[in-house]
Amino acid sequence: MGKSRLEAFSDGVIAIIITIMVLEIKVPHGEVIETLVPLIPVFLSYVLSFLYIGIYWNNHHHMFHATQNITGPMLWANLPLLFWLSLIPFATGWMGENHFAAAPSALYGVVLLMAAIAYWILQQRIIASQGPNSILKKAVGGDWKGKLSLILYAVAIPLAFLWQWGSMSLYVFVALLWLIPDRRIENVLRNTDA
Amino acid sequence: MGKSRLEAFSDGVIAIIITIMVLEIKVPHGEVIETLVPLIPVFLSYVLSFLYIGIYWNNHHHMFHATQNITGPMLWANLPLLFWLSLIPFATGWMGENHFAAAPSALYGVVLLMAAIAYWILQQRIIASQGPNSILKKAVGGDWKGKLSLILYAVAIPLAFLWQWGSMSLYVFVALLWLIPDRRIENVLRNTDA
Amino acid sequence: MGKSRLEAFSDGVIAIIITIMVLEIKVPHGEVIETLVPLIPVFLSYVLSFLYIGIYWNNHHHMFHATQNITGPMLWANLPLLFWLSLIPFATGWMGENHFAAAPSALYGVVLLMAAIAYWILQQRIIASQGPNSILKKAVGGDWKGKLSLILYAVAIPLAFLWQWGSMSLYVFVALLWLIPDRRIENVLRNTDA
Amino acid sequence: MGKSRLEAFSDGVIAIIITIMVLEIKVPHGEVIETLVPLIPVFLSYVLSFLYIGIYWNNHHHMFHATQNITGPMLWANLPLLFWLSLIPFATGWMGENHFAAAPSALYGVVLLMAAIAYWILQQRIIASQGPNSILKKAVGGDWKGKLSLILYAVAIPLAFLWQWGSMSLYVFVALLWLIPDRRIENVLRNTDA
Repeated sequence: MGKSRLEAFSDGVIAIIITIMVLEIKVPHGEVIETLVPLIPVFLSYVLSFLYIGIYWNNHHHMFHATQNITGPMLWANLPLLFWLSLIPFATGWMGENHFAAAPSALYGVVLLMAAIAYWILQQRIIASQGPNSILKKAVGGDWKGKLSLILYAVAIPLAFLWQWGSMSLYVFVALLWLIPDRRIENVLRNTDA
Repeated sequence: MGKSRLEAFSDGVIAIIITIMVLEIKVPHGEVIETLVPLIPVFLSYVLSFLYIGIYWNNHHHMFHATQNITGPMLWANLPLLFWLSLIPFATGWMGENHFAAAPSALYGVVLLMAAIAYWILQQRIIASQGPNSILKKAVGGDWKGKLSLILYAVAIPLAFLWQWGSMSLYVFVALLWLIPDRRIENVLRNTDA
Repeated sequence: MGKSRLEAFSDGVIAIIITIMVLEIKVPHGEVIETLVPLIPVFLSYVLSFLYIGIYWNNHHHMFHATQNITGPMLWANLPLLFWLSLIPFATGWMGENHFAAAPSALYGVVLLMAAIAYWILQQRIIASQGPNSILKKAVGGDWKGKLSLILYAVAIPLAFLWQWGSMSLYVFVALLWLIPDRRIENVLRNTDA
Repeated sequence: MGKSRLEAFSDGVIAIIITIMVLEIKVPHGEVIETLVPLIPVFLSYVLSFLYIGIYWNNHHHMFHATQNITGPMLWANLPLLFWLSLIPFATGWMGENHFAAAPSALYGVVLLMAAIAYWILQQRIIASQGPNSILKKAVGGDWKGKLSLILYAVAIPLAFLWQWGSMSLYVFVALLWLIPDRRIENVLRNTDA
């Protein structure tokens, strides 16, 4: 089974998610620069979520680049990932409108955690289907970034109720962790070709 | 005639439908967790509709995977399916906002029924064009799932006015029926290749 | 230059246009069937516009199916078509909310007329680039449907101010005219291959 | 690494951006033509932004047409471009609702400037990866259009506070500059093939 439609559908959903978030930045009434000030937290939460969605798209791209055969279970395992990503605009909007208050910041972490778990399950499905010589398994290796992200999200959720900025710092830290270029899959593919 | 654009257009429309439904979950005013409570029925109806749209995308994917030649009538028969699917966000929003009341639950069933009929007509068009050795015909066989779904939707619509939760249970049951992996098309394709 | 991105971009824009129109059907407050009654004109105008966008997608598909080489001018000539199609949701919403009143019905005709002119210019560009043996020129022939549509839109616009239902009837008539399967391009391609 | 998904994702995001701008043109309450008058500035700012997004799509298309190998850094450098383009609907809406007032017109210029810088960085990344015989480098040459655009945006931003129509004229002028067909990349590709 080809992977073009799985990729096209995922690209479509992710492209829409990343773009409709901007609809939460409502056009203000008033023509002076000061009317933009209340939008700053909404804008900052948009930037953070844009980064996260961009990272997910990039990782999704690399993961399926290392996947030759698409199976039915992969099609199904892809849907929960898209589901949790689709809730990011809502969580982003609630967090931005309430200036990173405790409960919205915790919910944001819950959505990120669930998306990360869904991504991990999808990755395991692909590795399992590729058998003992899985290219993807070699590429992700111990997957310390994935594991560390899960732990940090799980810490950030309760932390939001104690110290909201600590929670936010963890979300920003995890995003930066993934922004550092990750050549694992590219390297393994290059070595496999050679 | 190639099928890439039919698939790309359908993927685009389905991706947008599945994503704009989330816009019905309006960001609440208030920063405590309790402000999310009124959103629970809206969220649950979103989950159900996400499942349905995901199932339709999956089945659409499999159906056209078993289709080599696209004819003009298939292009036209695809449009009513997209039309009825496009009404799911409206029906979902109305049902969620009114806590699964009678009329909205019945309308939800009408939209599901019409989408299922449109899907069935599209399937018949493809089978007819493939002639007596239709791969798709072998794959769907007696199509008991499709027929049972139509019957259950038709029962659920009037039932909504008598016992709304019975109606909802039928919608959930049909969704679960389709979630159970369906290897029919994959199996037939494998046997045909062998 | 390949045509895949031109098609993909056009498919994306058309898929979004056809889907965001449904956002104009606002979820009503009230859980009885009667609350849907005021939405009937909005729904009917949605159905008409869905038909038009579906027809444009179908014709666009066939036109580029008969086009091998994409030139820069074609890329530019495609944009005005997408621009005018993008105004259909606005015109549809205004017409539906005002129960097919004179001015909204006339504006709807103006948008349809401009889209039809943009389509015609794009078609002429392709025919001109294909030279004297243009497949597309053979396929569209005298293009009586295209010419008749332009005339009927031009009649319907002023008619809206005199007799709004006459105007609406013309819009429906043109849509039905295009729904009748049009095998011209398919036939010419088949004869060319043979 | 293939470029199909980079193109598909970019096409998706750009298609959504160009289309959701039209949602800012709110359907007016009132059925006479006069109710459209207040929408004229909103419509004009939509036309300008549609042109800009169309130009960006066209240039993006040409740039990647002259790019054979996609690297990880290109995937990342593409995201800031999409980010700044995604803010155009907001800037367009604010500018249109406030009849091209000073601060909204300046913000519009800031978003255009940042998008242009992001585009330039992406272009440099591709040229760097192509080495000394870069096709793209030959194609863009001195890139006087790109450089002049940056200067004009930088002039237009402060100018908006002194003379808003001068600022708007610069935005329109830059758009027209790019609308004049630019055969650079096509010509270089033709010569390279020959």
